Amino acid sequence: MAEAINLAVIPGDGIGPEVIAEARKVLRAALPASVALTETEYPFSARHYLETGEVLSDDSLDALATHDAILLGAVGGDPNDPRLAGGILERGLLLKLRFAFDHYINLRPSKLWPSASSPLKHPGDIDFVVVREGTEGLYTGNGGVVRAGTPHEIATEVSVNTAYGVERTVRYAFELARTRRKKLTLVHKKNVLVNAGLMWNRIVDEVAAEYPDVEVNYLHIDAVTIFFVTDPQRFDVIVTDNIFGDIITDLAGAVTGGIGLAASGNLNPEGAFPSMFEPVHGSAPDIAGTGKADPTAAILSTALLLRHFGHDEAADRVEAACEADMRMRDGNARSTSEIGDAILAQLQA
Amino acid sequence: MAEAINLAVIPGDGIGPEVIAEARKVLRAALPASVALTETEYPFSARHYLETGEVLSDDSLDALATHDAILLGAVGGDPNDPRLAGGILERGLLLKLRFAFDHYINLRPSKLWPSASSPLKHPGDIDFVVVREGTEGLYTGNGGVVRAGTPHEIATEVSVNTAYGVERTVRYAFELARTRRKKLTLVHKKNVLVNAGLMWNRIVDEVAAEYPDVEVNYLHIDAVTIFFVTDPQRFDVIVTDNIFGDIITDLAGAVTGGIGLAASGNLNPEGAFPSMFEPVHGSAPDIAGTGKADPTAAILSTALLLRHFGHDEAADRVEAACEADMRMRDGNARSTSEIGDAILAQLQA
Ligand SMILES: CC(C)[C@H](C(=O)O)[C@@H](O)C(=O)O
Ligand SMILES: CC(C)[C@H](C(=O)O)[C@@H](O)C(=O)O
Repeated sequence: MAEAINLAVIPGDGIGPEVIAEARKVLRAALPASVALTETEYPFSARHYLETGEVLSDDSLDALATHDAILLGAVGGDPNDPRLAGGILERGLLLKLRFAFDHYINLRPSKLWPSASSPLKHPGDIDFVVVREGTEGLYTGNGGVVRAGTPHEIATEVSVNTAYGVERTVRYAFELARTRRKKLTLVHKKNVLVNAGLMWNRIVDEVAAEYPDVEVNYLHIDAVTIFFVTDPQRFDVIVTDNIFGDIITDLAGAVTGGIGLAASGNLNPEGAFPSMFEPVHGSAPDIAGTGKADPTAAILSTALLLRHFGHDEAADRVEAACEADMRMRDGNARSTSEIGDAILAQLQA
Repeated sequence: MAEAINLAVIPGDGIGPEVIAEARKVLRAALPASVALTETEYPFSARHYLETGEVLSDDSLDALATHDAILLGAVGGDPNDPRLAGGILERGLLLKLRFAFDHYINLRPSKLWPSASSPLKHPGDIDFVVVREGTEGLYTGNGGVVRAGTPHEIATEVSVNTAYGVERTVRYAFELARTRRKKLTLVHKKNVLVNAGLMWNRIVDEVAAEYPDVEVNYLHIDAVTIFFVTDPQRFDVIVTDNIFGDIITDLAGAVTGGIGLAASGNLNPEGAFPSMFEPVHGSAPDIAGTGKADPTAAILSTALLLRHFGHDEAADRVEAACEADMRMRDGNARSTSEIGDAILAQLQA
């Protein structure tokens, strides 16, 4: 249990700063009084990049590394701005942080919260967690282009997977399953991606021997999308690679009523580097400044932060406050800060 | 318009032979009397492999190559049979055919048929077609393993993409969009997979200049899964790579009421090699022999076959017969052959 948390805050672009303001209010109120919280704001964002030319310099990375954790709102400017093309921010900021700080666990809980409106007729009682590997696969930036821009161009993307990287992810997932309903599903495409798929499969089988209490099964990535819309309540813990995890967590957010409620943690579980907590949603430039953004996902991300530092009771209280607030929603529009205040009031009730 | 069709039929495993029997009845009835249809059955399947050791020999491939088209039921045995592990059938049969016969267009229409039960509350009027590239990407079998089976194993999968392969696929998609609602969506992950993603994007932009009447937009693969469950009727033609196409067509099948209704064509549009038509569903060993399989997807696949050979009117009649049959469904269970007979009766009405 951490007795001091030296937090870096990256509010980011668009609705990022709006939801992060609410998340900080709730985080401060939830932390036990004995824990000293220091907060330092950093400007990294599309805006900062366009103003200064810096996406995230090595000095900035060093500065962030001195913190215990990072709370991030959302980064991303106008999707049609050519100055932001080529994933410059995604790769130079978000992915750079995930790789530099060895965030090998991308933890993404999916839950159908009370009064959340699922697009499914019969969503059932959805409550699962995706453990997405965060530092390998197609995200390594491996690959390249020859004869660029010509009719003879060849472009490759290399998915790099190591037993080391897979095993630590799989172990984390088994440990998590043990604290939950003890069911683990490996998602891959092992009938086509036989190199990586069979390695994932082998490692899951090997680690499974140490967790006889956890029931294990396997689904292809294509099949899992079917079950997400026909029977999502069957899942407990899902472990998968970086790109498959990216895809299914957006789908999971949608079936649980919108990624406006989905929290995530980019974890370096051992604490060698600061872990990073962020809502799954983006910067939503279209609603920025209107007060329409729901800060719940950002607030739920602070619950993941609290849990990461061993403050399970405070994390439970934040989640309970969000749940109580969601239970009371009557469909009347509330502003970002009204929702934040209501959750804070629930927390303090 | 073909005046003779020399068809290879691979009924396959499980429910494959059951649905193919119905598809053949309907195909024969739909073809104009002037067209000579020759049908030759081939035994390739999990069963055949376990009995003879042959998945698909080069001689067999040569034999298939003499045909104008292939109608395939489904291949796949017991998923837990270790003799079938490692995707031996998928890669040795299905993918071998797709690659050997240069099936660069994997055409997968998605439609919410009348009385089909979508798991979505508000599915809307879903009617789109996914044009999935079929011969490149992560499906090339590129990549490998070093230090196999050890804690130091490294497994790679290489997505190989060529301007040649992408451009012909993109052109096909634009042509198709022109015959429909004139909207084309490119699906990729260009903010992360910048080599392949930006090449796809460039080629779509270039070809778009020749199709000013077609409206083009772009969505990331993760975002598209959200729209599939929140607003699927927005899509008309989607063009995407092999793995993303694999994933979203299963999801599309699910939101339109089950992949039991989803047809597909593996096309070599120029006819240099036989194209292959197959329902998207698998061999479903759990219901094989019970008469519970719905042959509609297989029958709809013959409509794609008819259209491929220029028999548009016959294709329309098969689709109309399926649609009329689906409109009449009252929830009472019918056997595979009862459904086949009912569709045949509609066709002949
Ligand atoms: C913005 C993008 C790089 C990122 C990803 O692909 O991981 C996002 O989609 C996510 O899921 O956090
Ligand atoms: C069986 C498998 C190899 C195949 C694929 O991945 O293409 C299937 O999922 C499909 O979509 O036809």
